[in-house]
Amino acid sequence: MATPVKVHGPPMSTAVSRVLACLLEKNVDFQLISVNMAKGEHKKPEFLKIQPFGQVPAFEDGGVSLFESRAICRYICEKYADKGNKGLYGTNPLAKASIEQWLEAEGQSFSPPSSVLVFQLAFAPRMKIKQDQVVIKQNEEKLSRVLDIYDKRLGETRFLAGDEFTLADLSHLPNTQYLVGVSGRGELFTSRKNVGRWWNEISSRDSWKKVVDMQKKSA
Amino acid sequence: MATPVKVHGPPMSTAVSRVLACLLEKNVDFQLISVNMAKGEHKKPEFLKIQPFGQVPAFEDGGVSLFESRAICRYICEKYADKGNKGLYGTNPLAKASIEQWLEAEGQSFSPPSSVLVFQLAFAPRMKIKQDQVVIKQNEEKLSRVLDIYDKRLGETRFLAGDEFTLADLSHLPNTQYLVGVSGRGELFTSRKNVGRWWNEISSRDSWKKVVDMQKKSA
Ligand SMILES: N[C@@H](CCC(=O)N[C@@H](CS)C(=O)NCC(=O)O)C(=O)O
Ligand SMILES: N[C@@H](CCC(=O)N[C@@H](CS)C(=O)NCC(=O)O)C(=O)O
Repeated sequence: MATPVKVHGPPMSTAVSRVLACLLEKNVDFQLISVNMAKGEHKKPEFLKIQPFGQVPAFEDGGVSLFESRAICRYICEKYADKGNKGLYGTNPLAKASIEQWLEAEGQSFSPPSSVLVFQLAFAPRMKIKQDQVVIKQNEEKLSRVLDIYDKRLGETRFLAGDEFTLADLSHLPNTQYLVGVSGRGELFTSRKNVGRWWNEISSRDSWKKVVDMQKKSA
Repeated sequence: MATPVKVHGPPMSTAVSRVLACLLEKNVDFQLISVNMAKGEHKKPEFLKIQPFGQVPAFEDGGVSLFESRAICRYICEKYADKGNKGLYGTNPLAKASIEQWLEAEGQSFSPPSSVLVFQLAFAPRMKIKQDQVVIKQNEEKLSRVLDIYDKRLGETRFLAGDEFTLADLSHLPNTQYLVGVSGRGELFTSRKNVGRWWNEISSRDSWKKVVDMQKKSA
């Protein structure tokens, strides 16, 4: 039996859960290695060797060690091309170009405001950090503009990169789950017809339901 | 003769110049199509058809239309694999994984603070927008922490992803050029031994010198 790949970090972390969703879609065995962030384990020299920014996740596959969740997802799709969901990263150059375009849109346009909102609305209260209402309002406005563009796109195609569920859609799951589930900001998504339909569809995938289960169990 | 690919946007734009540097490295003919941003041409319906976020660059190659500078660069490297610098996006899966990792580090960790600084220090004065000293200080601190990590990495390898110049290095050129050249923040880079050495090397490439020339001519 092949040695499972290793993911270092808690499933509650959005960046960790992006990698977990990808591994489950690709049907790749993995071992989750806990990193106690409350104790600052992600800033310890041992961990910095595999993730120099002191963030989770870090990833290992045999002798290969990688960081950055979206880079890890790309690697998993390339290395395990024949396993699980084969269309996740496209099966031809044009499909791939479209996936890369929307994966970058996620990383560059969707993630910045949605990550701030996830922190402010879901994590700050648990960490007893005071919420900043000005920051919340600004980022809701930024995210709304992005979701208007998505709503138009998703009126033309079933998923962001085209007619198949891909890494581009998957990459949106972690932040959206917190915004819809925990922070009471679901309306941002459900009030937009096509975005609402898309969210229902992508969040119902078995892979993602398993990740949400892992998050609940580790909460 | 093949029809040249089209890049919509001014060379002064950091995201446009990232794509231009990639095209020059890959020795791919291109046609630059001007977008008058002062007149808001990037927010007009015609332009939004090829770049729904209303930003530059937009890119066309025959029937293929793409946005997001880093996605466009990946596409150029894949489509024109046999042209120009063949190692730019790696020639084996491991090299590629390392390039993706550092390209994501650029997009996720380097670009956010450096883009804010480029705007505040280089563009705000020209646009007669008041600089925000608090924002400048915060982002200098963020960028310094990133550059400390880079300095350590670049003490181990000649370039970010390994011993070859790749897309991961190239992607840092546009913002760094403004910070070193225009805004008087060169020290952030040159005061760090390995980062300084790396910057000298990557900014001396013919491809990048041509982009800087194009920027000067269009200024
Ligand atoms: N761009 C990175 C982001 C990683 C990240 O921000 N991780 C967070 C948890 S979701 C973290 O480790 N935060 C702790 C810190 O930055 O100190 C990735 O996608 O892997
Ligand atoms: N993530 C995008 C960013 C593009 C971007 O921010 N372009 C700027 C110029 S460098 C722009 O068009 N700004 C005008 C605006 O956002 O309205 C990419 O890399 O292509």
